Order: sequence, then structure tokens, then C-alpha cells
Amino acid sequence: MTKKFDLIALGRACIDLNAVEYNRPMEETMTFKKYVGGSPANIAIGSAKLGAKVGFVGKVSDDQHGRFIQRFMKDAGIDTSQIYIDKAEHKSGLAFTEIKSPEECSILMYRDQVADLYLQPEEISEDYIKKTDLLLVSGTALAQSPSREAVLKAISYAKKNQVKVAFELDYRPYTWQSPEDVSVYYSIVAENADIVIGTRDEYDEMEGKKGGTNQETINYLFQHQPELLVIKHGVKGSFAYTNDGKSYQAGAYKTTVLKTFGAGDSYAAAFLYALKAGKDIETALKYGSASAAIVVSKHSSSEAMPTVEEIEALIEGQS
Amino acid sequence: MTKKFDLIALGRACIDLNAVEYNRPMEETMTFKKYVGGSPANIAIGSAKLGAKVGFVGKVSDDQHGRFIQRFMKDAGIDTSQIYIDKAEHKSGLAFTEIKSPEECSILMYRDQVADLYLQPEEISEDYIKKTDLLLVSGTALAQSPSREAVLKAISYAKKNQVKVAFELDYRPYTWQSPEDVSVYYSIVAENADIVIGTRDEYDEMEGKKGGTNQETINYLFQHQPELLVIKHGVKGSFAYTNDGKSYQAGAYKTTVLKTFGAGDSYAAAFLYALKAGKDIETALKYGSASAAIVVSKHSSSEAMPTVEEIEALIEGQS
Amino acid sequence: MTKKFDLIALGRACIDLNAVEYNRPMEETMTFKKYVGGSPANIAIGSAKLGAKVGFVGKVSDDQHGRFIQRFMKDAGIDTSQIYIDKAEHKSGLAFTEIKSPEECSILMYRDQVADLYLQPEEISEDYIKKTDLLLVSGTALAQSPSREAVLKAISYAKKNQVKVAFELDYRPYTWQSPEDVSVYYSIVAENADIVIGTRDEYDEMEGKKGGTNQETINYLFQHQPELLVIKHGVKGSFAYTNDGKSYQAGAYKTTVLKTFGAGDSYAAAFLYALKAGKDIETALKYGSASAAIVVSKHSSSEAMPTVEEIEALIEGQS
Amino acid sequence: MTKKFDLIALGRACIDLNAVEYNRPMEETMTFKKYVGGSPANIAIGSAKLGAKVGFVGKVSDDQHGRFIQRFMKDAGIDTSQIYIDKAEHKSGLAFTEIKSPEECSILMYRDQVADLYLQPEEISEDYIKKTDLLLVSGTALAQSPSREAVLKAISYAKKNQVKVAFELDYRPYTWQSPEDVSVYYSIVAENADIVIGTRDEYDEMEGKKGGTNQETINYLFQHQPELLVIKHGVKGSFAYTNDGKSYQAGAYKTTVLKTFGAGDSYAAAFLYALKAGKDIETALKYGSASAAIVVSKHSSSEAMPTVEEIEALIEGQS
Repeated sequence: MTKKFDLIALGRACIDLNAVEYNRPMEETMTFKKYVGGSPANIAIGSAKLGAKVGFVGKVSDDQHGRFIQRFMKDAGIDTSQIYIDKAEHKSGLAFTEIKSPEECSILMYRDQVADLYLQPEEISEDYIKKTDLLLVSGTALAQSPSREAVLKAISYAKKNQVKVAFELDYRPYTWQSPEDVSVYYSIVAENADIVIGTRDEYDEMEGKKGGTNQETINYLFQHQPELLVIKHGVKGSFAYTNDGKSYQAGAYKTTVLKTFGAGDSYAAAFLYALKAGKDIETALKYGSASAAIVVSKHSSSEAMPTVEEIEALIEGQS
Repeated sequence: MTKKFDLIALGRACIDLNAVEYNRPMEETMTFKKYVGGSPANIAIGSAKLGAKVGFVGKVSDDQHGRFIQRFMKDAGIDTSQIYIDKAEHKSGLAFTEIKSPEECSILMYRDQVADLYLQPEEISEDYIKKTDLLLVSGTALAQSPSREAVLKAISYAKKNQVKVAFELDYRPYTWQSPEDVSVYYSIVAENADIVIGTRDEYDEMEGKKGGTNQETINYLFQHQPELLVIKHGVKGSFAYTNDGKSYQAGAYKTTVLKTFGAGDSYAAAFLYALKAGKDIETALKYGSASAAIVVSKHSSSEAMPTVEEIEALIEGQS
Repeated sequence: MTKKFDLIALGRACIDLNAVEYNRPMEETMTFKKYVGGSPANIAIGSAKLGAKVGFVGKVSDDQHGRFIQRFMKDAGIDTSQIYIDKAEHKSGLAFTEIKSPEECSILMYRDQVADLYLQPEEISEDYIKKTDLLLVSGTALAQSPSREAVLKAISYAKKNQVKVAFELDYRPYTWQSPEDVSVYYSIVAENADIVIGTRDEYDEMEGKKGGTNQETINYLFQHQPELLVIKHGVKGSFAYTNDGKSYQAGAYKTTVLKTFGAGDSYAAAFLYALKAGKDIETALKYGSASAAIVVSKHSSSEAMPTVEEIEALIEGQS
Repeated sequence: MTKKFDLIALGRACIDLNAVEYNRPMEETMTFKKYVGGSPANIAIGSAKLGAKVGFVGKVSDDQHGRFIQRFMKDAGIDTSQIYIDKAEHKSGLAFTEIKSPEECSILMYRDQVADLYLQPEEISEDYIKKTDLLLVSGTALAQSPSREAVLKAISYAKKNQVKVAFELDYRPYTWQSPEDVSVYYSIVAENADIVIGTRDEYDEMEGKKGGTNQETINYLFQHQPELLVIKHGVKGSFAYTNDGKSYQAGAYKTTVLKTFGAGDSYAAAFLYALKAGKDIETALKYGSASAAIVVSKHSSSEAMPTVEEIEALIEGQS
């Protein structure tokens, strides 16, 4: 039976304010361009651009920024019926980007009491979660209550209804109370997910250690639910492991880097899309890497999400 | 290999202020007698009284009440090395009991920002958890952060070290943010515990429903980790179920009820003690019921915990 | 025109739990007796006992403790029509007293989020404030919002309606955020009051200094509204100053001290009563000292408040 | 003796993000230009531009936005030695402007837990306050603790050192807990200020009423400290009253309105500058109106502050 959605993403959808004048410190940036941002929103947008049927569960502010986000996602072809409007005056999160150089980027975040962290467990619809093949949850949504409990509730509904769960670690230090909390909740979610995607550093946060190895992660998580792990090592490329003992690797594609933001989100969107499209894991890794290479060469994260054709052209061009 | 502890209990240890003049509303009660209270503390004290080797993990106030709790538990033979002293001026919880009649009891709780809810995940010692056969956690400790994360961390250590986990649901409505939160965290912990003990109403809170049946609970939890469930139906007696499909039942013992407080804690202490002592489940249920019958006939919860001889005398007397 | 009330007191009314077994640390005290407590409640009760017509503005918990407080104050002859019932589950404050020896007393306070600190400015009735000759406000009510704003509002109404304001400094370190806050709000209220009563230490808190002198206090406050200052120096007796340049002094009466609690409240009640009764300041100081001497020899603060006859008998006996 | 400063302004300094594409709803605005904003910062900048010696007391974020604010104000000639850097990760406030039409402007504010509201009373230097002729405080700084207490402390130092206090009501509904709080604190500060400036609506907020008259305001405030009140009635012009019973009025200047933001701040800067320069009140009102007319015709508030020459040219051109 075909489900209504290939992917439902859950978590933050917010506003990126990208420096128009770059290659300088943000103090000297005078103009900012507005985009939709936030890891799960970017993944949803990226997936929709690749042709997937996508839904989104989240909460946005009851103001111009919130309405912009909703409209942009709807225009991208995403089902926005489960994007709640915050009625308690919480604002949408903001990310001002500073692009000093391709190597030196930083983000100035406004995340205090933002609307997406106020998604409540009672706002999660079992009927909606049922309609997808894959539920993607983002680690940042675990940072605070009640969003944390909304994620846990959504996963519980997914498991009850045989919906696969992908966990994009998406670790951001702000808004977390302590490293112990990160470790506690990342562990619970990773142990219950089917697919886990993150950087080596993010897995280390989850495991509460420094300098952990992929083998340790495999030993730990394959005792539980996961069947597929993707561990990204930056320029060294990315690795995938399956619970039948196999492993895969992919390098990075050459590109002219403008900024590093959005790489992870475009990677996840393309990787999951390729899997769903029946590609083998090796190919899916290439899709992820190519998609990331395209996004880092452009000014935005969400608007720059590539099409299948662009990804395949890049793969072909550099193979 | 024999472990250092039969049982480590984790959670709140606080102060009961029991009405000296009873059979009247609390407005007319002028004198209160002080006892140690709190479900996991009572279970620890009850277990120690039965001869078990017991440790306790918790946090008490840095004041006369906190010192009284520590001293009382130490005098009861409990290892108090993991009872932390709160350094942020949080007070010990209080429970003023009102005993209008044996049937009409109520409790006036002081639970706002109490010390036990400030136990932190970084204060949980894996080395300590390792030393017990059984870790008992109390549902109330899940009501707020950081105590919530401390419980989740302790369970994670227990599972990593093959320590069995008993979950006493111990549901108290105050301090919880919403019924959804109760359901989310009770489910996570119950799915990961080996033994779950609670009233029918408490299981319903966990399952987020009203009027649930034991069969539904069995269907749900035996898909996960639990191997033994105890479901108490008040005067109708209690039921035990094992994941091999067997079920057991025990009635209540006759007694002169002074108040209803402390019944559940004395039940859990005696039931778990009996299991550990190698009794069969049927006998363990009798131990639980007999222990409860003894405590409800006395003024305190903690001080009234019975010895093995008292329990066996009651069972024999009414068999 | 005679007003309905001689005195309206505003601020906390809470529960004292006094050690029944004293001359020992509280850890060894097993029984506590319940009384109404809190500085402005004690002053109201003391004033009523002396025959004054008294009203009270405050907020108590919606539970057995709150109802006990209301009933006790009503039975003492106080108008309780402006005692609000907290509808947000805040508890009544508690004070467990420890009486190690007459010289060594301490109090274990439960003041976190207590009902009296949730009295709101919109709950202050101008019509009610109008009906009194004197409004007495307590410094502790300034410790947190919204009680702080309720006090400021009540003073504003008093001034608008030519009602005199007495400010009992009643400084308690807990619940205040910082010494700067104490100084800021104590100064605002003292500058706007007609009568200020406190210990030398409390005036120092207000002035944000250590080792201040009465002369400095006089120089400061007589530039503003106050016409009468009472500064208490413990065993050295108390001093009164008027803004016409006069000063008065009174010694302490001999008594058998059981505990030190309640001395200040009984002092204020009797001093203000004597003034209102037309006594000269010298006599009013004696009333205050005698009333304090009587209360410190008894077990409670509120119940022990003396009658005019008891006060006059003591003054006469020791003159 | 000449003082170091003509004016010290105290309160928020934050970031305005003004729509680059205007005459449309903000949802359709894609680019924003960054300016320094916040009423007291604008007044300080405007005053400096007019040639006044200006200091500023405030707190900014420890990030790129905070550094931009500091640098901009320093470059404007303002003494920034009392601008504190927030060390607790509070962000600088943001104001996104929406310019639908000259008549329809709105602001989307980010004011949750912003750095300026964390200025603490202990950060107010009596030595610094002493050095100015006039202290200007902004009503918004009273909205929350500890900034509220910092303002009260600064006023207390000003009065102790015979420094005049100007209170710019600057009422913004967000961040205030209740209308009662606004009324309580606005009243305390207005009663203690020498000059009060605000719109008729803002005075109504202070007086806790709707539809108040200037006469009522005069009757109330001239019983206290104020000697000069400015009450603005929008397009009907503005009124000034002095406590010797005189009154003054000024109309508005014709201009091409781009947006309405910044009008009040430029008014206050020019009005206070003119007074200090020894102009009569009538002329000072003209300065205020002319300055406002200039700023509303330009894109920013802070950068657009006029010079004396520009103001005088406008006055002359339309007289």
C-alpha cells in the first residue's frame, strides 16, 4: 500500500538571515537576506525539491516571520497542515549568518523561547504519523520541553504503526541544559530509531565521550533498533554501516565553497531520497555528498536545495 | 558473585508530618508528628527492615529536615553514601497528612522545587548502580528535570550492567506539567524495566487512557523488556503477570485501618524482598498484601514497616 | 470622622510549626504545634487583642492551612474580607522553629512560591484602604512580584486618601534576589511612609551599608515623608525619633526568655496601639517593650499576644 | 561648574532591521538593513549629533550585534564606558520594521530575555551619574527586573546629587507583566522626575485610565517633583506645561512621511538639546517637532538624526 507521504519531518522551521555582504565580520555586514531555515525544514524542502511527498510537523510564530515560513514551505509542495501557530507570543527562531571566508563561518542564533520548542505532545497526531513511510526527527527538537516530549510521542506513534524513524542528530549546543541531558535524550531516541545520521562529533555528544570511534558506536547502537548508521567525518567523507555488518564509504565532491551552512541538511535530504528511490547505499551516499557540495556553493540553504538532475550531473561530472 | 546490595532505591526521601489528633479535618489538627516519607525511601526502609542490603540514591535539603532524613535512613541500615545534599537551597518535600476517617485520608503536599527533584544525571554513579541486583525507580522522580534525566541515566547504567530494574509507578499528579508528559515518560521507563508495579489507575495514566484492562497492559508491555507486572486493584486484591503467559492473584488481609498511606510502599518492599528471597510469585504477592495490611493499621509509613516475622505471622493467622 | 479600621495590615499570613520538644536541635524534635504566623498577621492579631479595629489584606493557599489561617484571624476579630484565596496552587508559607536554647533559635522557612507573594496589585481595593487610619506594610511583601507591586499600589492609594503608612522593615534574606533590590525597594517605601519601624540592622540593609548610625538614618529619611522613626538595638533598647528633632529611648523589660521569635511583631502591635490610643511616644515605647517581653516568654507568637492589662501590669511591676 | 556630560541616557540599545523593500507586508520583504535602535540609544545618538556631550548606561550582547552597537555609538561621539557586555548569553533586542505605507507601519520585536533588561542595579555608578546635568531614563527599562531596579537606583543617585531627571515614557506593551505594573512603576518614576515626556496614551497608561486629560495629569504630577511636562497628541501637535502654571503648544511640520518610527526619539533629543542650549520652551517644542519631521522622512531612526542646521532650516522654511 502506498502511503500519502514518503517523509514527514518534525522539528524547527525558522528564519535564516544571511549576510548579503560577505567575506567580512558580521559587525560590518549591513544587509541580510531572509530565507527559511532550520535543519528539519531544510530537509523537508530539499526532499520536496527532489520530488518526494513530504509533510511537516512543527510550530511557528503568529507573526510575519511565521506566515512567511508557512507560505514558503507550502509553495515548496510540502503539506503544512500540521504546522501549528503559536498562540503564546513565542517568536520564530533566527539565525544570522556570518561569512568571513569559506572556512570561517559562524551563526548568531536567537533561540530563547522560540515557537518551535513549544510544540506539544498533544499536538502530535497518530493519524498523521501513520501516513508516512519515514518519520525524520531532529536532535534540536529534544533540547527543551514540551518539544522534547512531542518528539518522544511522535516516535512512539511511529513505532506503534510500523513507520520507520530517521534521527538526524543535528546537535546545537545552545538551549541544552547540560551535556548529560544531550546524552540521555540522544541515546533514547537513537536506540529507538531505524536510521541515525550525524557527524562523528555528534555521535560523541550522544555517547557522552570525546574521541569515540565508529566501531564503538556500531557496538552500542546495533544492540538496539537501528539498522543503518551514517557517520560523517567532514572532509574525510562519510561512512554508512548496516546491522548486517556491512560498511560503505563516500568521498566529498569538489566545489567552490561559499559557506558551510546547510551541508548536513542537503546531505540528509538527498541520502534519504535515494534510499527511498531504491538506490543502493553506496549510491545514496554519493547523492548525499553531491547535494551537500551544491548547497555549500550557494548563498542560502533552503532555496539552494538541488534537483535530482543537478545531483546526478555533479556525480557524473566527477566520476 | 554476590553483589553488595539486594536493592538500590532511587528517588525522593522527604518528611511526613502526620496528624497527631486524627479523625478530624486538618484545619482542626494542631499537632503533627515527623517521619521520613516518600515512596522510594519507604521501600528502602521497609526492605532494610526485612533484612535486605539496601542503598539509596537521592538528594535532600541542606537543613535540619535533610539531616534528619539522612540519619534516620542510616540508622535503618541503609547505605546513604549516594544521598546528595542540595547546595542550592531547595527544601525537602513535606506531606501533611489529614486523617478524617480510615476511608477519608488526604495529603497536603509541599513539592515546589524540592531537593529530590534536583538530583542530577551527573550525580548518578555507574559504579554504584553496578553493585546491586535490583534498581528500584519511582515514577514521581520522573516529574521534573533534572531528576527525570537522573532516573533515565540510572536505568541506562543498570541495563548496560545487567542490573534488573523495578519501576514503582508511584503516580502523584502535582509537579507534572501534563498527562501527556506522564504518559511519555512512564512508557519509556516501563518499556525498559524488568518489573513494573502499580495500581490499575497508574497503568491507565501511563497508557494515556481511562478504564484500561490488564490484558491491554500485558499486550503492550510484554512486547518490550518487562518480564513481570504487578497490577493492584485496591480492595479487589492484586494481580501478577509474567511474560511466559502465567498470571497470579492475591486477596487483601483483614486489618483495622487507621489510614491508607504507606500501603503501596510496604507492599512493594515485601513483594520484592520475597522474590529476592526465592519465594514463588504467589507467596510474594501474599507478602506484599500482608505488609500493606500491617502498615495501614499504624500511624506512620516508614517507622511502621514490618519484619519478616510480623508478615509471616499475619499470613499464617489468616490462611 | 471615625474610620472603620484603626489599622489595616498588608502582607504575609502563614503557618508557624513550633517545636513541641525544645532545648534541642530540630533534627531531634519530633512534634510540632501549628500556629498562625508571619509578621503582619502577628501584628494584626496583636492589635486586635489590644482592642483595635483591624483589617487584613493578603493571600492564602486554597487548602487546609489557608482555611486555618483565615478562620483563626476571623476568630481573633480581624476583618478577613480582603484575604484572597490563591487559585494557582501556591502553598501557604511555613516556618519550622528550632529552639535550642533561649539564645539559640533558628527558623527553617518554606517560602518558595508561597501564596502571600502572589497578592496582585489589581487585588488592592482603594475603597478598603480608605477606611483605615493607618496602613501597615511589611518589608517581606516587597521581596517578589506581584506582591511587591501590590504593596506599592496600596501605599499609592493610602497617600492619595491621606491614610498614614507604617512600614515595618521585617527583613528576611530568603526570597530576595540581591541586597541591591532590598535597598532599592526599602528606600522607596520608607521615603513614602509616615512611620518606619525596624532594627538597626534592617535600616542598614535599607541604606545599603554596614555599621550605619541612627543619625545618618535620621538625616536621610527626615528629608522625605517620615515623621516618626523607631530603631531597635536589641538588648540595648529601642529609640524613637520625630521629625521635629526630638528623640526618645526605652529599655527592655526583664523576662524569662523561652525563644526570641515574635518579639518584633508584638512590639509593633503594642507601640502602634499606644500611639493610636493617644499615649505619648515614651509610653508607646514602653508598651512595645513590655509586649515583646511577654511574647518571648511563651511558646507561640500569635496566640501569646498580650492584652492591655497584661502589658500595663508588666510596666507597672518593673517601674 | 561645567559637568562632563550634558546628558546621560539609560536603557536599551538594540538592533533595528529595517525593510529594504517597503510599501509591502513584511512577509514579502526579503532584505533588511541593520541600524542601531532603541529609544534611549536613539536619543543619545540624536543628542550627540546636535553637539551635546553624551554618555550612555546600558547592556549589550556579547556577540557581533553587541559589538556593532558599541562601535556605532562610540563613532557617534558617545561615551560608551558604561555600556556593559552581558556575560550570560542574553541577546541584543531586535526590531524588524514593516513599512506597508506611510500610515501603516508595524514592528516585530524580539525582546525575550534581551541583554538590556539585564542591566543590574550594582552596575550603576554614582560617580558616573554625578557627572551629568541631566539623566534620561526610558520607560521600557522598567519593564523587568533587574533593569527596573537599575533605573530606580540611577534615579536615586541622580536625586542625591542634584542631577535633573528626564523620563521619556516610551511605553511598549511587550515584556510588561500587566497594566497594573506599568502604572505602579511609571508613577513612581514620574513622581520623582523633573521632566516627563510622552504621548497622551502613554500618560494614560501611567495613570491607569483611558481618555485622561492633560489637566488631570497636571493636577497629579505637579503635586510631586516634576517641573515640566511634555504631552504629545500626534498630528494635533504637542503641549508643554510648567509647574508655575504656564502652558505651551507647537504644531507639526509638513514632511514626506516614509515611516513613523523614530519620531518620538528625535523629538526628545532635539527638545532637550534646545532647553539645555538656553532656548525658551516654545522654541524647544519647535526643535522637537522639526527633528521628528526630518526623521520620519528617512529610512532609519538613528542614522537619520538631524543636525542643528537641518532643524533650523526646516523651522525657518516653514515659519
